[in-house]
Amino acid sequence: MSDLNKELLKRASTCIAGLNHLLSKRPDQFTDGVWPSYFTRAKGVEVWDLNNVKYVDMSIGGIGATVLGYAITEVDEAVKKVIDNGIASSLNSFEEVELAEVLIDLHPWANKCRFSRSGGEGMAIAIRIARAYTERDKILFCGYHGWHDWYLSANLSGESLDGHLLPGLSATGVPSCLKDTALPFEYNNIESLESLLLKHRGSVAAIVMEPIRNTSPLPGFLESVKMSAKKEGAVLIFDEISSAFRLATGGAHKVLKVEPDMAVFSKALGNGYPISAIIGLEMVMDAVDKTFISSTCWTERTGYAAALATIKKFKKDNTSSHLNEIGKAVQQGWRDIAKKTGVSIRVGGIPPLSHFEFIEKLEDHLVLKAYFIQEMLKKGFLASNIFYAMGAHTEEHVKDYLIATEEVFTEIFKKIKTNSKISDSLSGKASAKGFRRVT
Amino acid sequence: MSDLNKELLKRASTCIAGLNHLLSKRPDQFTDGVWPSYFTRAKGVEVWDLNNVKYVDMSIGGIGATVLGYAITEVDEAVKKVIDNGIASSLNSFEEVELAEVLIDLHPWANKCRFSRSGGEGMAIAIRIARAYTERDKILFCGYHGWHDWYLSANLSGESLDGHLLPGLSATGVPSCLKDTALPFEYNNIESLESLLLKHRGSVAAIVMEPIRNTSPLPGFLESVKMSAKKEGAVLIFDEISSAFRLATGGAHKVLKVEPDMAVFSKALGNGYPISAIIGLEMVMDAVDKTFISSTCWTERTGYAAALATIKKFKKDNTSSHLNEIGKAVQQGWRDIAKKTGVSIRVGGIPPLSHFEFIEKLEDHLVLKAYFIQEMLKKGFLASNIFYAMGAHTEEHVKDYLIATEEVFTEIFKKIKTNSKISDSLSGKASAKGFRRVT
Repeated sequence: MSDLNKELLKRASTCIAGLNHLLSKRPDQFTDGVWPSYFTRAKGVEVWDLNNVKYVDMSIGGIGATVLGYAITEVDEAVKKVIDNGIASSLNSFEEVELAEVLIDLHPWANKCRFSRSGGEGMAIAIRIARAYTERDKILFCGYHGWHDWYLSANLSGESLDGHLLPGLSATGVPSCLKDTALPFEYNNIESLESLLLKHRGSVAAIVMEPIRNTSPLPGFLESVKMSAKKEGAVLIFDEISSAFRLATGGAHKVLKVEPDMAVFSKALGNGYPISAIIGLEMVMDAVDKTFISSTCWTERTGYAAALATIKKFKKDNTSSHLNEIGKAVQQGWRDIAKKTGVSIRVGGIPPLSHFEFIEKLEDHLVLKAYFIQEMLKKGFLASNIFYAMGAHTEEHVKDYLIATEEVFTEIFKKIKTNSKISDSLSGKASAKGFRRVT
Repeated sequence: MSDLNKELLKRASTCIAGLNHLLSKRPDQFTDGVWPSYFTRAKGVEVWDLNNVKYVDMSIGGIGATVLGYAITEVDEAVKKVIDNGIASSLNSFEEVELAEVLIDLHPWANKCRFSRSGGEGMAIAIRIARAYTERDKILFCGYHGWHDWYLSANLSGESLDGHLLPGLSATGVPSCLKDTALPFEYNNIESLESLLLKHRGSVAAIVMEPIRNTSPLPGFLESVKMSAKKEGAVLIFDEISSAFRLATGGAHKVLKVEPDMAVFSKALGNGYPISAIIGLEMVMDAVDKTFISSTCWTERTGYAAALATIKKFKKDNTSSHLNEIGKAVQQGWRDIAKKTGVSIRVGGIPPLSHFEFIEKLEDHLVLKAYFIQEMLKKGFLASNIFYAMGAHTEEHVKDYLIATEEVFTEIFKKIKTNSKISDSLSGKASAKGFRRVT
């Protein structure tokens, strides 16, 4: 890592609690001491760090938020237009009505919307609405849903989040009385949901899940979940914060052919501009009138303008199809290179949200990951074991990336074969253990 | 109300649950059927509605968010610059470090910051941190702090929020187990706090309050609160979401000369762009490492760029001084006009956040308020019984506004004197009961 990046990291460690604002963008998730951490400029899929070193970004794609790519003209022009016309006033933004209509048009099962500014916030609103609608408290869930009390309370029964979310983190700071208000079931295991429902019959407000993420739903699984929710009188909430705008324009559930009672979007919705949306059945959504959900920052226009322009371009370019092609090419490339070089990996994820894991016996995945990141940086790539496709990625980017990947994998195999410790070749630290998901 | 505004309101009622995203911007808070509700353009203090009717905004000033005024060049140019350079990437925004340093420089008692995107979200983060730091659950509070569970739970002990926040709203949707986790005390009543502390000794995580709002603190009150917090080992949190950037560049507590353990900003911080900040003592803030607080939308740059530019301009123009002069002129004008015309009102609030209430015996405040709004709209003003000063307000705006106000007050007095029912003169509805604050 060069000096300016390092200097800023040092300053950040003295003034920002927890170093930054998203765990997935923390340098220890890549390789501490090497990963550049900060950028000055980003355009298309290119990113310039503080030392003005340019990288092609084949890593986390803005952790899935910048689905079209960086500094996309159509989106930025739309935002600049509302800036010129004033982003806020004492009156409301008409764009919020337009965005609601566009989202309902994309998801005809839904009748009403609400908006907020971050994914976790959107999920907290959805949970409040579901609880107000059912006048019940308990939530059954699988998958990841953010930092709020309603979700982290699931970890109050254990000692830490080790088995669920993140090693070394506990649910400290979540009121202890929330214990047993959120209970996890297993994705693709309908029995695990059914047994919870049996135990908590009549007290479940919502069943919350990502409809698809690392694995596809088994035939009939989502349909069974929907049936179970209906039988219980619970609200079925699809958290589409990560999955939406990958398989379709809008929610992945459009492709999976199962309609929830509510769905929550963020990330890709605004191509990086802060916006989140909660859509749902009118009878459920109207429970907002029984409670109090209100915030000044939700009324300004840039988020709405960005979302409207993102959806428009996504439709026009058929971006979801492009994301899948790019993602498939990367996954196939990883598999081919692994086979060719002799490095053992396990590839997973839907194509637009791909990842792999090193399964070498002699060296830990987190050491190999750090080495891969370090060597790819030298070749001009932001890369990790995660690849999130963006609209601005081209076949050429993938080709160049796979050439570089093959070179690094060849080096890794050479080291493994000669029993040379890869940890000795790390300029920085091994990657920290990342998210472990409740699935 | 003209057609385009009305048509959009009708569309909103069919697709947005609760009509809009902030109670204070709902037309029923003004006068339903007359208030224009939506804008297309805003510049300085001028606002154009959907019918292209122009108003001078002497009302809620973007509910305190747009402290400098609308479409302020210096702020917008800074935001456009980060848009051109990419608002997000897989790396972090260096502007978050700069903003943290600027906020600490403004509030030297604080060592560390965190950022989020809305006021309520910022408060929920502050509460989480305080609970994680103290490993306690209970919150003692006065004032208004948003929509989140930790706060609304205060109303679980009663039947509705009637006595606290908003008539007709209940705490439905907040888990019932949170009952008695948030307990209200009275502003300027140290005994009310002390008696709660006596009852809950050793279990209070935080004392949460707006340091100033409608009334000033009595001599020694804030100091006593601070002492009580210290004795209890509880975190003192100042919610400066409304009060900051009114009396000083930064928190009002700078002028009040009492330093909390944490303070939360939003609204004015980004001049309308969504941003919120939590600042605090390092030993408290570092409790983030014991819990999990993370969100993708917090990492993008526009909020940071807007806040940095807003603070810079605020300092350069000495905006807080201007806000106070403008606010004082309006309060004095209201008092003079009331005396001159014979209409009885009660004036309150710190000058930058002023309001008045009609105290006529013959007609309800909410009817008179609606009539005032209706007649002021005819004269080209967005006006209400609330006036939030903005940097772009000039003496000329105040002068013109007070001339119009006097004309309407004269009319009101004439009607009262002749026993003519003002409710018969309303084209729309009487104003809805607004926020009632826990004080």
